[in-house]
Amino acid sequence: MNILILGGDGYLGWPTAMHFADLGYNVAILDNLAKRGWEAECGVSPLIPLPTLQERVDIWNSLRPGSKISLYICDIAENDQYLYKIIDEVDPDTIIHYAEQPSAPYSMMSRRTCTYTQRNNIQGTLNLILSILHHKKDIHLVKLGTMGEYGTPNIDIEEGWLEVTHKGRTDRVLYPKKPGSWYHLSKVHDSHNLEFACRVYGLRVTDLNQGIVYGISTDQIWLDKRLATSFHYDATFGTAINRFITQALIGEPITVYGEGGQTRGWLNIRDTLACVQLAVENPPSQGEFRVHNQFTEVFSVRELARLIKECLGGEVVHIPNPRVEEENHYFNATNSSFMKLGLTPHDLTVETVLDMKRAIDPYKDSINKEVLTPKVRWKT
Amino acid sequence: MNILILGGDGYLGWPTAMHFADLGYNVAILDNLAKRGWEAECGVSPLIPLPTLQERVDIWNSLRPGSKISLYICDIAENDQYLYKIIDEVDPDTIIHYAEQPSAPYSMMSRRTCTYTQRNNIQGTLNLILSILHHKKDIHLVKLGTMGEYGTPNIDIEEGWLEVTHKGRTDRVLYPKKPGSWYHLSKVHDSHNLEFACRVYGLRVTDLNQGIVYGISTDQIWLDKRLATSFHYDATFGTAINRFITQALIGEPITVYGEGGQTRGWLNIRDTLACVQLAVENPPSQGEFRVHNQFTEVFSVRELARLIKECLGGEVVHIPNPRVEEENHYFNATNSSFMKLGLTPHDLTVETVLDMKRAIDPYKDSINKEVLTPKVRWKT
Repeated sequence: MNILILGGDGYLGWPTAMHFADLGYNVAILDNLAKRGWEAECGVSPLIPLPTLQERVDIWNSLRPGSKISLYICDIAENDQYLYKIIDEVDPDTIIHYAEQPSAPYSMMSRRTCTYTQRNNIQGTLNLILSILHHKKDIHLVKLGTMGEYGTPNIDIEEGWLEVTHKGRTDRVLYPKKPGSWYHLSKVHDSHNLEFACRVYGLRVTDLNQGIVYGISTDQIWLDKRLATSFHYDATFGTAINRFITQALIGEPITVYGEGGQTRGWLNIRDTLACVQLAVENPPSQGEFRVHNQFTEVFSVRELARLIKECLGGEVVHIPNPRVEEENHYFNATNSSFMKLGLTPHDLTVETVLDMKRAIDPYKDSINKEVLTPKVRWKT
Repeated sequence: MNILILGGDGYLGWPTAMHFADLGYNVAILDNLAKRGWEAECGVSPLIPLPTLQERVDIWNSLRPGSKISLYICDIAENDQYLYKIIDEVDPDTIIHYAEQPSAPYSMMSRRTCTYTQRNNIQGTLNLILSILHHKKDIHLVKLGTMGEYGTPNIDIEEGWLEVTHKGRTDRVLYPKKPGSWYHLSKVHDSHNLEFACRVYGLRVTDLNQGIVYGISTDQIWLDKRLATSFHYDATFGTAINRFITQALIGEPITVYGEGGQTRGWLNIRDTLACVQLAVENPPSQGEFRVHNQFTEVFSVRELARLIKECLGGEVVHIPNPRVEEENHYFNATNSSFMKLGLTPHDLTVETVLDMKRAIDPYKDSINKEVLTPKVRWKT
């Protein structure tokens, strides 16, 4: 089985590549390395230093000569011709698509980053759809979306589709979305484009609406510390959990945005790999736009802060919320489809937090306190 | 009152400009003239020859020295800096936004026209949103969408929003869309971006989901035949009604795509002007994303063909549908909000058809039969 992973330099793309390589897939990865530019632009860097992508691939290939990863540097949003060539060469059965600008604050930073994020993400996914059609190949496309596409509706969140009864008639419709940033919107647009491609051209697509991922350990990562994946603790690319652990580690207050009642779906990076694998192994039929909600637990940012404090000590403080979002809201989302497929979740435990802390502890002195504070405000 | 009309060279933009100029507004129009390039690319042209936009504006201004129109040539998708300058200079109370690639077949023609349509439409609207925010001005944005965004759901079509009850809980959500082309998708994406801008930044936006417009007569157009608006009868930029009238006029069969059960909302160009005026005169409150469905009648393509045949003679034939769409489906859409605001519809009558026929009759010899046949297929 041939698999092409787009965004193979990213926090999830790189561990996914190693995971599938170890499973015996022929793995090719593609990246435009743009994330390294965005980091430089924001003056931030992953806490655990990362070699170049080329070096990481070389290290992996020397450790695992029997399951080598091949590498393509390509911008799928801007260079569709090269993308066509790569798909022709790799001949993938499955494409896993992580290759998008993934930060909500980055997309809200300036007019340029807003339009860039939408253009990059929408055009990249469109070029991908069109290249699959161009080759007339029966490729299963696994696309990473986000639970943030749904926003926080006052009704239960289903998996991508909703059965609506209105004035005595019924239809199955795309679940109505209310996303919270230009970035989240770009993913909503992608989903609409993908559903159309399934409906009209018979593509087979799995759209994974993923919760917030944490953790930096997988079965492959610690084979060599140069195979580590990125740990962002800054307010632009880092998530609340990374930020809180970092703050506790260096004795800074754990800063919760607003009241912290924001309730989200979360999952361990190991469960991301398990979910993506389940998605790859259970492709939808031709023309089906299948959506899975990909998270294992639900808790609020306030509860998260309390857990980190219990594990690592420190003080929890509330700071003005730089985002425009509801801080107390209804949230009831289902994740039953992956559970039915046999997912065995790793919950967020004290042990998980301590594992993350241990992994970043050697790099404690490199932590830049400045970047823990949010600079991007939704509304100025 | 200052009004800026984007897409002022278009079928609706130009009559809208003259209409508001006659109402006493200070009218500025903006266009990138791209439509003339798309026409050339497809080898088609409007049946009634159009002067350049600069000439049309000069003709209008010499006829109406008291209500001059000013003109800016700008690509809002690509030149945001110039757009900011224009908005600063014009200082509009209202912006009417028609400046998008408006053809479904054009968007489905090639991979390039697909990505171009989405980039052009989404980036243009985004730049517009961002320029209003940049100026911190309280501008009412009136955006043209399309009834085609909804598709043909099995439930009643409401105006942009839907009250959903699900598992005993209720929310008001954006009406779920199922559009039928890359073009229609671009408008769905615009609507999501606009709703976000209202919700987060307090913009005031009226999104007009317009039906299929017909007619080439308004109070201003026939003041001078050089003020005419475009009449497209080709399969790419023309609508069914223009195509059918043209076919009947030259004794060609009236070609219905498939069974012709496709049911749509329609309206006269005079009603477009009346609706847009009602929208401008009744702005939503700050932060409100208001949606009106803008059509006056509902009938199927088959019924339309029958009417044209009754008026002008000719034979109705059915040809394979180049589009992927349902040919027999439920369709019940409301248009009550404009009716409540006092719209008095002009129905499609024998007299309307004859008026259109009379207007194009002098140009009968310029009709190119070749372009009546659809060349773009949704699925090849």
